Amino acid sequence: MGNTSNDMGSNVTAVAVAELPGLNTLGISLARIDFAPRGINPPHTHPRATEILIVIEGRLLAGFVTSNPENRLITKVLVKGDVFVFPQGLIHFQKNLGKGHAIAIAGLSSQNPGVITIANAMFGSNPDIVGDVLEKAFQVDIKVVHQIQSKF
Amino acid sequence: MGNTSNDMGSNVTAVAVAELPGLNTLGISLARIDFAPRGINPPHTHPRATEILIVIEGRLLAGFVTSNPENRLITKVLVKGDVFVFPQGLIHFQKNLGKGHAIAIAGLSSQNPGVITIANAMFGSNPDIVGDVLEKAFQVDIKVVHQIQSKF
Amino acid sequence: MGNTSNDMGSNVTAVAVAELPGLNTLGISLARIDFAPRGINPPHTHPRATEILIVIEGRLLAGFVTSNPENRLITKVLVKGDVFVFPQGLIHFQKNLGKGHAIAIAGLSSQNPGVITIANAMFGSNPDIVGDVLEKAFQVDIKVVHQIQSKF
Amino acid sequence: MGNTSNDMGSNVTAVAVAELPGLNTLGISLARIDFAPRGINPPHTHPRATEILIVIEGRLLAGFVTSNPENRLITKVLVKGDVFVFPQGLIHFQKNLGKGHAIAIAGLSSQNPGVITIANAMFGSNPDIVGDVLEKAFQVDIKVVHQIQSKF
Amino acid sequence: MGNTSNDMGSNVTAVAVAELPGLNTLGISLARIDFAPRGINPPHTHPRATEILIVIEGRLLAGFVTSNPENRLITKVLVKGDVFVFPQGLIHFQKNLGKGHAIAIAGLSSQNPGVITIANAMFGSNPDIVGDVLEKAFQVDIKVVHQIQSKF
Amino acid sequence: MGNTSNDMGSNVTAVAVAELPGLNTLGISLARIDFAPRGINPPHTHPRATEILIVIEGRLLAGFVTSNPENRLITKVLVKGDVFVFPQGLIHFQKNLGKGHAIAIAGLSSQNPGVITIANAMFGSNPDIVGDVLEKAFQVDIKVVHQIQSKF
Repeated sequence: MGNTSNDMGSNVTAVAVAELPGLNTLGISLARIDFAPRGINPPHTHPRATEILIVIEGRLLAGFVTSNPENRLITKVLVKGDVFVFPQGLIHFQKNLGKGHAIAIAGLSSQNPGVITIANAMFGSNPDIVGDVLEKAFQVDIKVVHQIQSKF
Repeated sequence: MGNTSNDMGSNVTAVAVAELPGLNTLGISLARIDFAPRGINPPHTHPRATEILIVIEGRLLAGFVTSNPENRLITKVLVKGDVFVFPQGLIHFQKNLGKGHAIAIAGLSSQNPGVITIANAMFGSNPDIVGDVLEKAFQVDIKVVHQIQSKF
Repeated sequence: MGNTSNDMGSNVTAVAVAELPGLNTLGISLARIDFAPRGINPPHTHPRATEILIVIEGRLLAGFVTSNPENRLITKVLVKGDVFVFPQGLIHFQKNLGKGHAIAIAGLSSQNPGVITIANAMFGSNPDIVGDVLEKAFQVDIKVVHQIQSKF
Repeated sequence: MGNTSNDMGSNVTAVAVAELPGLNTLGISLARIDFAPRGINPPHTHPRATEILIVIEGRLLAGFVTSNPENRLITKVLVKGDVFVFPQGLIHFQKNLGKGHAIAIAGLSSQNPGVITIANAMFGSNPDIVGDVLEKAFQVDIKVVHQIQSKF
Repeated sequence: MGNTSNDMGSNVTAVAVAELPGLNTLGISLARIDFAPRGINPPHTHPRATEILIVIEGRLLAGFVTSNPENRLITKVLVKGDVFVFPQGLIHFQKNLGKGHAIAIAGLSSQNPGVITIANAMFGSNPDIVGDVLEKAFQVDIKVVHQIQSKF
Repeated sequence: MGNTSNDMGSNVTAVAVAELPGLNTLGISLARIDFAPRGINPPHTHPRATEILIVIEGRLLAGFVTSNPENRLITKVLVKGDVFVFPQGLIHFQKNLGKGHAIAIAGLSSQNPGVITIANAMFGSNPDIVGDVLEKAFQVDIKVVHQIQSKF
């Protein structure tokens, strides 16, 4: 089982072309996601893949946000055996709603799907994105930008 | 010229399959981006396209962040005639560095590239993403989450 | 759990575009495979997809045969958590090696992968393939052809 | 002309990327099929291509079997100039119905279509597929499995 | 046999999605080309397909021109059984070098390859391309432009 | 600005994979086209890309010809800000209708679109296309063929 003792309470074990070279050109990969109680897989995107997820154990809230101009949030509570789809490139997340651990398996439509964790890309990039871009983009004071950046 | 009198100081005029139905199946679209002085085109992604941008007028800072685990920020200052590329699905932005207006033209590798403005998708979705997911994801107090949500 | 009380001792529950219309154009689908003790998922191909499989429970023998002229059989014994890949269009199978039930999840690189069970397509088509084609192809007496056809 | 003095009474001369390197990335290849009187091109699939076939000389029975659950056999008698299509990955075959030789030309939608001759992959793989998998899959006694395997 | 009693001394019989609807989405089509003695299949392109050609009867000169800046002409004399490739979108032609009729079969990597006969598109469009564009493009007097246009 | 002191009165500055290696596999490129007064961008095709063009300055006539059998000419007069599309592989051209210079930016749906200038490929190939092929194809006397060839 993946180690879920971290801030998010979750762990993703990916099997993509970097881990399994035979996947090259084949257009598919897999990931296992473990959740501690109340753990989340934080909002992220896969720049080159659609994801289909099945719950193996536990009860999850799964959600994604559609693109501009709607920014509509689509969510569903999933129990063991339920399946959900996150269309290519859309921001999505999962949260463990149960009291125990939860496990999900995800198929991804690329041998090299990539993962962009939104908070890390926005506030933890190396080097940092210049403060006034984030100030304007998130409509917050520069102090709040620096406060969030200090966590990543 | 696009109207740049808004919080971001920028305006995007897209010509994709919704505006020009003849583009269907042809795998290409175009956008014009106008910037007020100091205006930004805030961090966003195109879930289904790579973007290539050329500066027509003015001086821009263009940047994108690579995916996990590096989250490396790549930036470049662009002047009239310079070209830059934002690979498919990566978070990117531009900022007008000059004192006057700036204009850029972007080609996108899909007739329906989509746009996800990160701040709007994270803090302005409809309905809101449940607070504790954002609290954990951005490592901030729930009050900060609500403060940012109130702006979108 | 899928009902495995059949000749093969296995059951496939697919989630493709026919079951989940939202998968259309997204290039991915999923299947759950349940095995009774000693059950097999008989030799088959997916004409439009590569498959990546992960064992959730039990111990499986997984194999596929490469194309002409080698016809090389590649097999591996898989336990819980192991992952294996069946490249697009190649004939493959799994067999439960354990004493209890086994479960696997498969991701497929198409929303409409299709399944061709070799024995059914060869000896159980509707109408039957003319006997002398099968006689020559499998190098057996026509009686053997008819005997096998009677089972499908 | 291809040498058709073999068990099947047919010969396939392929021109794919292995024979003509300039085909690389171009998504097309060609094959010529020669048939002795009563010769067959035994049931096979192309894992990465659709095939379109035209009869140059003679009279052929062409057929393919659709995927699960129908396993419907589609056949047509073709004379000189007739064209037939075998969709990607489906099992198909041809049989010379005339008293003389027959010739067909096939176009394939890949520079590297691959060929899987069903009987060879099932009963002539190297090493053999374990007997009980074939016993169950084809619903025959192990002796019949061994008898067929001895021919390949 | 196609009727070759025309100015070019050739006839193309295409089997694409318009003639065989079952080809839709399958990415392949076929054409038969008949040549009178000295007949030519005039310079043309397929905007959406690579072509692979095999000579069934006769002796042909086949050629294509590479793109800018080389504009290199690649030609080969083909006899019965020879195969040649015309990469996607390049201008190509064939000429019957023999004293009798000639026949070739072509596979094309699209169910809807399209054909643009260069002379017809340039000098026989409906309506005509404005004269000064052709004058400049072909570096000829307007009278020559009108003379050629009068033939198409 | 591109140097437009040439027979055509135009200059194309391309940014494709040869100029910007980072474009590889990304499916997009860009070009800037400068026009002298009355300059033309002569009839040409991109064998691997659709083009979308926007006028930055000046007034252009843009046109393309559809494929056989229609050979229909589609044209439009474009002013600053107007957008036009040239579908993949079709012959197209632009002409500066204004009294001053004109500028356009084009997005292309391939990192390696290629350019075939029709007159150069037909009459300026290296070596020349044999005269009788051009004589028949363009329905002109061999003298006219040689006259045009002498210009390229």
